[in-house]
Amino acid sequence: MAGNTFGNIYKLTSFGESHGKAVGGVIEGVMPGTEIDLDFIQSELNRRRPGQSAITTPRDEKDKVEILSGVMDGKATGTPMGFVIWNADQRSKDYGNIKDVYRPSHADYTYQQKYGIRDHRGGGRSSARETVARVVAGAIAKLMLKKYAVQINAYTSQVGAIKLEKAYNEMDLAKAEENIVRCPDAEVAQQMIAYIDQVRQDKDSVGGVITCVIKNVPVGLGEPVFDKFHAQMGQAMLSINAVKGFEYGMGFKACDMKGSEHNDEFYMDGDKVRTKTNRSGGVQGGITNGEDVYMNVAFKPIATILKEQHTVNKQGEEVASTVKGRHDPCVLPRAVPIVEAMAAMVMVDMIYLNKMYL
Amino acid sequence: MAGNTFGNIYKLTSFGESHGKAVGGVIEGVMPGTEIDLDFIQSELNRRRPGQSAITTPRDEKDKVEILSGVMDGKATGTPMGFVIWNADQRSKDYGNIKDVYRPSHADYTYQQKYGIRDHRGGGRSSARETVARVVAGAIAKLMLKKYAVQINAYTSQVGAIKLEKAYNEMDLAKAEENIVRCPDAEVAQQMIAYIDQVRQDKDSVGGVITCVIKNVPVGLGEPVFDKFHAQMGQAMLSINAVKGFEYGMGFKACDMKGSEHNDEFYMDGDKVRTKTNRSGGVQGGITNGEDVYMNVAFKPIATILKEQHTVNKQGEEVASTVKGRHDPCVLPRAVPIVEAMAAMVMVDMIYLNKMYL
Amino acid sequence: MAGNTFGNIYKLTSFGESHGKAVGGVIEGVMPGTEIDLDFIQSELNRRRPGQSAITTPRDEKDKVEILSGVMDGKATGTPMGFVIWNADQRSKDYGNIKDVYRPSHADYTYQQKYGIRDHRGGGRSSARETVARVVAGAIAKLMLKKYAVQINAYTSQVGAIKLEKAYNEMDLAKAEENIVRCPDAEVAQQMIAYIDQVRQDKDSVGGVITCVIKNVPVGLGEPVFDKFHAQMGQAMLSINAVKGFEYGMGFKACDMKGSEHNDEFYMDGDKVRTKTNRSGGVQGGITNGEDVYMNVAFKPIATILKEQHTVNKQGEEVASTVKGRHDPCVLPRAVPIVEAMAAMVMVDMIYLNKMYL
Amino acid sequence: MAGNTFGNIYKLTSFGESHGKAVGGVIEGVMPGTEIDLDFIQSELNRRRPGQSAITTPRDEKDKVEILSGVMDGKATGTPMGFVIWNADQRSKDYGNIKDVYRPSHADYTYQQKYGIRDHRGGGRSSARETVARVVAGAIAKLMLKKYAVQINAYTSQVGAIKLEKAYNEMDLAKAEENIVRCPDAEVAQQMIAYIDQVRQDKDSVGGVITCVIKNVPVGLGEPVFDKFHAQMGQAMLSINAVKGFEYGMGFKACDMKGSEHNDEFYMDGDKVRTKTNRSGGVQGGITNGEDVYMNVAFKPIATILKEQHTVNKQGEEVASTVKGRHDPCVLPRAVPIVEAMAAMVMVDMIYLNKMYL
Repeated sequence: MAGNTFGNIYKLTSFGESHGKAVGGVIEGVMPGTEIDLDFIQSELNRRRPGQSAITTPRDEKDKVEILSGVMDGKATGTPMGFVIWNADQRSKDYGNIKDVYRPSHADYTYQQKYGIRDHRGGGRSSARETVARVVAGAIAKLMLKKYAVQINAYTSQVGAIKLEKAYNEMDLAKAEENIVRCPDAEVAQQMIAYIDQVRQDKDSVGGVITCVIKNVPVGLGEPVFDKFHAQMGQAMLSINAVKGFEYGMGFKACDMKGSEHNDEFYMDGDKVRTKTNRSGGVQGGITNGEDVYMNVAFKPIATILKEQHTVNKQGEEVASTVKGRHDPCVLPRAVPIVEAMAAMVMVDMIYLNKMYL
Repeated sequence: MAGNTFGNIYKLTSFGESHGKAVGGVIEGVMPGTEIDLDFIQSELNRRRPGQSAITTPRDEKDKVEILSGVMDGKATGTPMGFVIWNADQRSKDYGNIKDVYRPSHADYTYQQKYGIRDHRGGGRSSARETVARVVAGAIAKLMLKKYAVQINAYTSQVGAIKLEKAYNEMDLAKAEENIVRCPDAEVAQQMIAYIDQVRQDKDSVGGVITCVIKNVPVGLGEPVFDKFHAQMGQAMLSINAVKGFEYGMGFKACDMKGSEHNDEFYMDGDKVRTKTNRSGGVQGGITNGEDVYMNVAFKPIATILKEQHTVNKQGEEVASTVKGRHDPCVLPRAVPIVEAMAAMVMVDMIYLNKMYL
Repeated sequence: MAGNTFGNIYKLTSFGESHGKAVGGVIEGVMPGTEIDLDFIQSELNRRRPGQSAITTPRDEKDKVEILSGVMDGKATGTPMGFVIWNADQRSKDYGNIKDVYRPSHADYTYQQKYGIRDHRGGGRSSARETVARVVAGAIAKLMLKKYAVQINAYTSQVGAIKLEKAYNEMDLAKAEENIVRCPDAEVAQQMIAYIDQVRQDKDSVGGVITCVIKNVPVGLGEPVFDKFHAQMGQAMLSINAVKGFEYGMGFKACDMKGSEHNDEFYMDGDKVRTKTNRSGGVQGGITNGEDVYMNVAFKPIATILKEQHTVNKQGEEVASTVKGRHDPCVLPRAVPIVEAMAAMVMVDMIYLNKMYL
Repeated sequence: MAGNTFGNIYKLTSFGESHGKAVGGVIEGVMPGTEIDLDFIQSELNRRRPGQSAITTPRDEKDKVEILSGVMDGKATGTPMGFVIWNADQRSKDYGNIKDVYRPSHADYTYQQKYGIRDHRGGGRSSARETVARVVAGAIAKLMLKKYAVQINAYTSQVGAIKLEKAYNEMDLAKAEENIVRCPDAEVAQQMIAYIDQVRQDKDSVGGVITCVIKNVPVGLGEPVFDKFHAQMGQAMLSINAVKGFEYGMGFKACDMKGSEHNDEFYMDGDKVRTKTNRSGGVQGGITNGEDVYMNVAFKPIATILKEQHTVNKQGEEVASTVKGRHDPCVLPRAVPIVEAMAAMVMVDMIYLNKMYL
């Protein structure tokens, strides 16, 4: 299995299955001297933690990270940071009845075909439990971004048909953390929460959109031609479980605009070059121009629903199947910190790559 | 400048500027013994060639590829294929007046900031002229895909507000090549062409969507967790000039669906496992499941318009600027073969990576 | 800190310091279905273990590996294998007196200069304790090599001036494991052991040569031009602590030979192409030819000696220093399994890369 | 075919066969603004050029490099530099008679086995003609190293049994360029030249050693644990055709030294930390310490000799074969600039990687 490493210089190599002993990873490229604020890392993990609210899975994981190397007296030494998060509340027996069943729209069938063997318990490696490692690496990236004053905020901007119509710069994004669905508009948040709760009672699931905003972006990040800033960011987001689409700036809305409507004219803001508008989303020619970066990430409704579905099993028989286990009716609230983590990792990596020009 | 190589095993490293001597590259991972059909490669280049129709730039490039290594007696030897496409019809003097001007929504400003120097002629490295190298590598990838019967078809599915409403499997995709906008529905094509022509006369530009479909996809392609099939594909597409968004399967439409509406139930088609529906777009858990892959790629209207715009120059002065030069009012028709090329390269690379399990 | 990953497809990413909580890593590219024989892995670790004999350091580490992922029911699932070896017998206080002292020919000074901070305890990341992770990855590589019947044997062929004159094919290499210095000639082994013991009593250290032999090598391994088989193998060996040189085949002895003396003539052995001699060491043009691979790895005497030495400290003062701590007078006996581990990892990786031609 | 790229940030991707149209490559990571001194690049190529003296092959190649991108007004723009060196004096017909014959100790057999097809003319990709691309990339690396005052000198220190006994710091290394064998000691040079001439007349070939010295090395280069400075350097050198061994510092001589004899004690040279001796060869713990780096590279006698030899052909028949074509009796004089080129590339790459700590 390839593809377990993300990044060029700031790198996370992750390991671990949903119902194995532990999930963890190795982080390379932590700047020596960085203060490793364990409370902050834990607070980020808590944002992703299962069981945090009425609209998330009740699986109870403390998700306490244990760092095994690369830190001395609270500071990063620059050597790789190995870390583990022990799995505690695995109920593998919940999965006994689906050992041989390919759950619809899950990775069961494809993993079995590709590897000839799979850990069926809770989705094994294909479970979003893997993303706990990303949140650790993202938290450390955020600690490193402090000195650049880079600010990353993600929030839920759509759940089902309920859309937040306000633009990111019309709201206080910090308010997203004040409600359990992580939408910065309290009123819309309540609608989303009510809808998710309804879906949960219906034993169904629902998708949505997470918007991610990066402010105070250094000019010059991104490596044309193949590793454009937004291409790296896109891969990062598309690698998150259940993601089906990515757009930045005007995104798909740019398709029915004219150049004269979409172009961002430059002007001088004192001695600083800026753009009057920011339809580009802070990226031009694959390189950041210093304006805010904003992106949308589309999540499908997660595949696990508690209704009966028709499918087939490993023996090639058509069967009806009802999944047990504990699941999120809507993955968005817990995915917000994951989106931020990926964005933070890309930012640090791009900043590193850009140092070659120093 | 990093980021000039695409792929893991089947790799293209490209070089070249819009108005330099040549654009070219090195292709690694060509299967020894592959018949290098130069006519086919040229026909692919012709699909991307400027000056091919009334709705594309009149810049006249023959775009004839010269292969310098890796081929003997018409067959690939497996060694790297160096190749060049000589730039012929450069009119660098067209760019004299914008040498120091940052054109709105172009890469002029970001390149200057990142590198401290830039080749301003025709956009230099940031020009889509670079993609001619991708079409060569994509054509060779297609030659290699023959033995897998993999079929890749891209087409223009939206120009401005004109959308092709038919699904990909309701049309004969080969018909896309029968009109100059590359839309498989003749009627919609005529509307698109008329609209682009109008935009051209208005000295403006317009965006759109290209849909790409891959049939006969081997099961098992893609490398979770970070290099999922669609994450690689997304990066590939987002690395194309002017692309602002990417989605696969139901994409952003999945956001307001419920799991019970989105899930693809499995059934037995003889002894083959298949899905009744294909909302997943042929990928589950980041790995192909053998169903058709379909994706949408969003293009903004290209930044070059022939209207006067306000901007700033290198000296920090606000100036009005009118661009000369020869440009496409709509990049979509010529981008269709580029999208196919990127898809073909990802396919070959993923097939190679999957061989480790043999 | 870059450079913590070894390999292209079969990859080890290692972490950990000598006196931190643990050393460990992530192994990618384990073939799904491989039986993970923990007893074998442990037996390899035991060969490297400190405290195993009178001529090694008395530090007492059980070096028991704990595998955290990638294995189910005793078989590899193909997902990454995270693992840790907990450090037990750290005596960090032994290093209090050298916290600020740059020990001669150690990594103290260079780490401090490069990272601006370092874990001084036992050498931190620069300690050969890191190699315990390599032995785990090497052991699993060996398990995977079984199906190819590849056989890897390393042994001590020189300690100080005591040289084993017999060629590798004049001895039973398995006998190397019958004595504590790991030399397949019992008589020479006794001389080596006596000499190391003398050196130990003199509070000094001594270097030597490890020879590594690979039999049943598949034809075709190695990737010209930069990643030639022996170039990869050379990098692997030179990355081991205290290694100062690498040669394969006739190595430096080839320098004063003529082509007519060095060339290996081909002949037919039944229907198999073979060479009459094997001065090439099984590699021609950077690719294995199926003959035995043999290589020499030169180890310097390790820098830690218990004699007083003159040096400087972090404050820029010249000081006399006597090192405490527990150390090997000669690293060769414990380095034999490390050399084998690196060889095994390269072999698996090259076999994987070669599968692209299937 | 993998392995055509060398380096992490400063990268060369090379292509080309001995008797194809051209050899060339793509260089990435050239610092924007670097003055591209074509005369200097050509002078480096001239040092490697065939036909330069009585003791090299008479093949007549001007080896004029044509740069296709990445340079404007004589300065690097930072974008990739594509370049070609056209093959002029190919006499492919010289190779007609060995089309199906596996020349002893050549890459003929291994390439045929690995790729199932090969360009037999002049060794195709396995020919040292490929190294002309390395010399271009090395020359540009040297231009970039000017600002660091890094000085790289390689020279022939052994030919057959004729050894230069003086240490590198006992000679004026620039004198190496004053004679055709590139040995800085005029007297020893004459012996070497006479010997090579004798070997040439005997239709034989001979090996030797090239020593490479790097002065003014920045402290802190190299990436432990796997990409140690000397491990990268070792791979670089071992990737050169005909190289059989690599050592740095005391190298194999360190094996019979004691720690008390080998250790380099530190002292204060004003406010600079230095070592009294430099047995380490400027590298400790895989990281440069600022002292001179010195390394030896062992070359076998090249396989092409004009004597009759016994071998087999593709049809599995044992045959006698006499090679025609034009060849070097001793590769050392022309390999000196190649060794320097590889050293320069590693230096630039390591300097780039070290910038992450800025």
